[in-house]
Amino acid sequence: MPRTTRRRARRDAGTIEQLPWQSIVNDHAPAEPLSADQVEAINEASLDILERMGMRVLHRGARDLFAEAGARVDHGEQMVWLDRALVVETVAHAPDAFTLRARNPERNLVIGGNRIVITSVGGPPFCHDLDRGRRPGSYADLCEYLKLEQSLNVIHMEGGGPIEPVDLPVETRHLDLHLAQIRLLDKNWKPLGLGRERAADAIEMACILFDTDREGLARDPALFCVINTNSPRQIDIPMCEGLMEMAGAGQAVCITPFTLAGAMGPVTLAGALALQNAEALAGIVLCQLVRPGVPVAYGAFTSNVDMKSGSPAFGTPEYAKATQACGQLARRHGIPYRSSNATSANTVDAQAAYESEMSLWGAVTAHVNILNQGAGWLEGGLTASFEKLIVDAEMLQMMMEYLKPIHVDEQTLGLETIAEVEPGGHFFGTQHTLDRYEHAFYTPLVSDWSNYETWEEGGSRTTTERANSIWKQLLREYQQPELDAAIDEALEEYVTRRKREINARA
Amino acid sequence: MPRTTRRRARRDAGTIEQLPWQSIVNDHAPAEPLSADQVEAINEASLDILERMGMRVLHRGARDLFAEAGARVDHGEQMVWLDRALVVETVAHAPDAFTLRARNPERNLVIGGNRIVITSVGGPPFCHDLDRGRRPGSYADLCEYLKLEQSLNVIHMEGGGPIEPVDLPVETRHLDLHLAQIRLLDKNWKPLGLGRERAADAIEMACILFDTDREGLARDPALFCVINTNSPRQIDIPMCEGLMEMAGAGQAVCITPFTLAGAMGPVTLAGALALQNAEALAGIVLCQLVRPGVPVAYGAFTSNVDMKSGSPAFGTPEYAKATQACGQLARRHGIPYRSSNATSANTVDAQAAYESEMSLWGAVTAHVNILNQGAGWLEGGLTASFEKLIVDAEMLQMMMEYLKPIHVDEQTLGLETIAEVEPGGHFFGTQHTLDRYEHAFYTPLVSDWSNYETWEEGGSRTTTERANSIWKQLLREYQQPELDAAIDEALEEYVTRRKREINARA
Repeated sequence: MPRTTRRRARRDAGTIEQLPWQSIVNDHAPAEPLSADQVEAINEASLDILERMGMRVLHRGARDLFAEAGARVDHGEQMVWLDRALVVETVAHAPDAFTLRARNPERNLVIGGNRIVITSVGGPPFCHDLDRGRRPGSYADLCEYLKLEQSLNVIHMEGGGPIEPVDLPVETRHLDLHLAQIRLLDKNWKPLGLGRERAADAIEMACILFDTDREGLARDPALFCVINTNSPRQIDIPMCEGLMEMAGAGQAVCITPFTLAGAMGPVTLAGALALQNAEALAGIVLCQLVRPGVPVAYGAFTSNVDMKSGSPAFGTPEYAKATQACGQLARRHGIPYRSSNATSANTVDAQAAYESEMSLWGAVTAHVNILNQGAGWLEGGLTASFEKLIVDAEMLQMMMEYLKPIHVDEQTLGLETIAEVEPGGHFFGTQHTLDRYEHAFYTPLVSDWSNYETWEEGGSRTTTERANSIWKQLLREYQQPELDAAIDEALEEYVTRRKREINARA
Repeated sequence: MPRTTRRRARRDAGTIEQLPWQSIVNDHAPAEPLSADQVEAINEASLDILERMGMRVLHRGARDLFAEAGARVDHGEQMVWLDRALVVETVAHAPDAFTLRARNPERNLVIGGNRIVITSVGGPPFCHDLDRGRRPGSYADLCEYLKLEQSLNVIHMEGGGPIEPVDLPVETRHLDLHLAQIRLLDKNWKPLGLGRERAADAIEMACILFDTDREGLARDPALFCVINTNSPRQIDIPMCEGLMEMAGAGQAVCITPFTLAGAMGPVTLAGALALQNAEALAGIVLCQLVRPGVPVAYGAFTSNVDMKSGSPAFGTPEYAKATQACGQLARRHGIPYRSSNATSANTVDAQAAYESEMSLWGAVTAHVNILNQGAGWLEGGLTASFEKLIVDAEMLQMMMEYLKPIHVDEQTLGLETIAEVEPGGHFFGTQHTLDRYEHAFYTPLVSDWSNYETWEEGGSRTTTERANSIWKQLLREYQQPELDAAIDEALEEYVTRRKREINARA
């Protein structure tokens, strides 16, 4: 096909319709699988764990902070025991909501209350699409994926690097990631939180981006850093460093234990929740000791393992109810709540969709504030899928639209139009319909609502195949949001200098 | 492959694990997208519709019943106007819960309260499976599908014939269906409700099955008959006949308007809900006039059309919230609530799964009592899919498991086992885990939780391909539940006689 014809064919496909950028408000009452007594029993068990069993904190400075605050510390065993009062008092410093800046101020984000912020997938070593198959991530893949995250309005926040660019040196990869995040998106982007130096680089780059210093950034935070614990009951050195650097700079830290019931947590859901809550509280205490009042989020990733293989399972029934229960625990402490859109599926098929829906409905009914890993995750988080990104965007848009209230007034009740249509007739041609039909209902991104014959004539394409066309079109139509040339240059200089420093040391 | 080897290979596949037959209790608070005031506003609008605009009732006898009760009737225009007081008083006769008998008394069903009863797909003209493709339904297909419905424990109630057997004469097809339903399943089965004679045949066959007469069956009902209205504001003759015959015999009737917003209902959700509620109430009034106190269900199928093509769309965001709103309206009148598991997808892919999940979560959060069309529906209800049946069974099992409460006590909190595991260790080997791991978590039916490499070695099969193996294995392992020989013979005789009568008339 000659180039011009091909271009026309592309144009003929039409613009991809998607919902506009918007914030999500969840007015539904949260689901509460636990009674108030059960919430208290689990929370008491968590406080017991922290007081009697303690946490192993591998970082000396972190242990010192705990000790200064009055915790019992054994530096030899690297153990920290937190009494109940200390936990409760310290956690109380955490704000119940906060705002994060984005490069484009219209994309600033409110975290907390009944808002939901959606992030894209972060961290997979592999990526996959129908054309190129499964492969270790590269910098080119990373940039393509970041462009798609910018293009999809339903994504509020970049997820911390969708793909590990294994073709770049591991020591300086984070600098390339942050530069790409800043240049290719005007949305809020997530830093990498492992290690002091990396965290500091993200902070410095954010300062350059916002033309401010560390105190300016602390007054008006931009970074949301996810810190996992090494469940059970341990926080390692890179995690502590990242946490302390970010919290010290007044940036938001999200503590997310990975308490898989039956593996890193007890096989019972109540036990896994008690451990999850204990570890989340310990991390939040550390943040508040570093800098009282620093924004934090309560992260939950309590799922279960497949007891036949020992491998983690996601989007399970247990995961959905644990997600709701963790929401209750987060609200118990008045802290914004983070959950995820997870699945164990290895390909973008029915299982990928129903497991993700279990995760999504679990999260939304739990009153999640930050839906981490919201779009693109496949294979239990090992792969960023280009087609899953589109399918997730559809599921997320549907959820956004579902959450919009039903308007009930004289106009919407439409008794006049009901009176006007004959029994057995139809409403297609009434003025009430004509005035509203264009924007009355959700328009899907990738769903095909045509009848079987039309669908067959169109090539019997599956949702995943249609998603493939969509991301390719989005990529063709992507436009890089303009960045102030001086800031771009300063960032480039910073990255070049830091690479030189790091490489000189190696 | 020689026969014996093939048999062994089949045996080696292992038994299919599924959850045991069980009733489902939904202890969650229902989702309420409408405020109490909005519920009243919609209900008032519905009463207004019935009082001022009226319903067209094509059946003379039904209009007479309305007239006798005090409604204003115009036989020339075939119109019936119901004043508010009449509606409210008459609807109040409906019970808020009832029990339906099944062939196997252990499979009797409670409809109402916080129970959820799941039925299989009913009515599609086509069927589909991966091996044989899409085709008009046959009697052989029907019987295969019925056997699968018997085999899947998650299905509580047969859905009223999963596939239209177009190779059988249309006038007597219902007799073959009911005989097959009774013989191949020991679960409750749904009758066909269009026309007096067909309804009467189902009632007679139920009497034979339960070795009782019409009054015995009325005391202890077995049939749950779905009656749609011809939205907007019309009930046709076959519907009226079916409704009156069933209600007259004391059998349960489920009134389900099909108020597609933008087509058979106003383009606004509030308007479509007002119309849906009006039509449901009109049908329920007619049932209660026929036989006060007869069990009824409040059916809802308010979705929207694709405004580009005019074709119906299912599992949409609007459908999910309409489902919840209808649940509020049903509870407003204290009547058991019916919803569906619907999708517009043409194949068993991601869309089929996410649209079904939107329907399912909509229904469950709405506190549905009867999930009609619960398993097998594809293509907006035009096709019964063998693979979708399995995928739906998985999604439904997951929902059942999700609804089970979280147990919180000393044993499940497991503080001892948490103390026992070293920080950074794991719980695989603890006694607490060993005592519980076998039944700790949900075991999937068709989901594959293996890692990518194992999945690839197994042939990279999609969920739909795995579902294909599962239904074939279930079909091979199906065992027909034994039926009393005298009853079987009496049913056979009845069917033979009725066929002779019907054919003689033709």
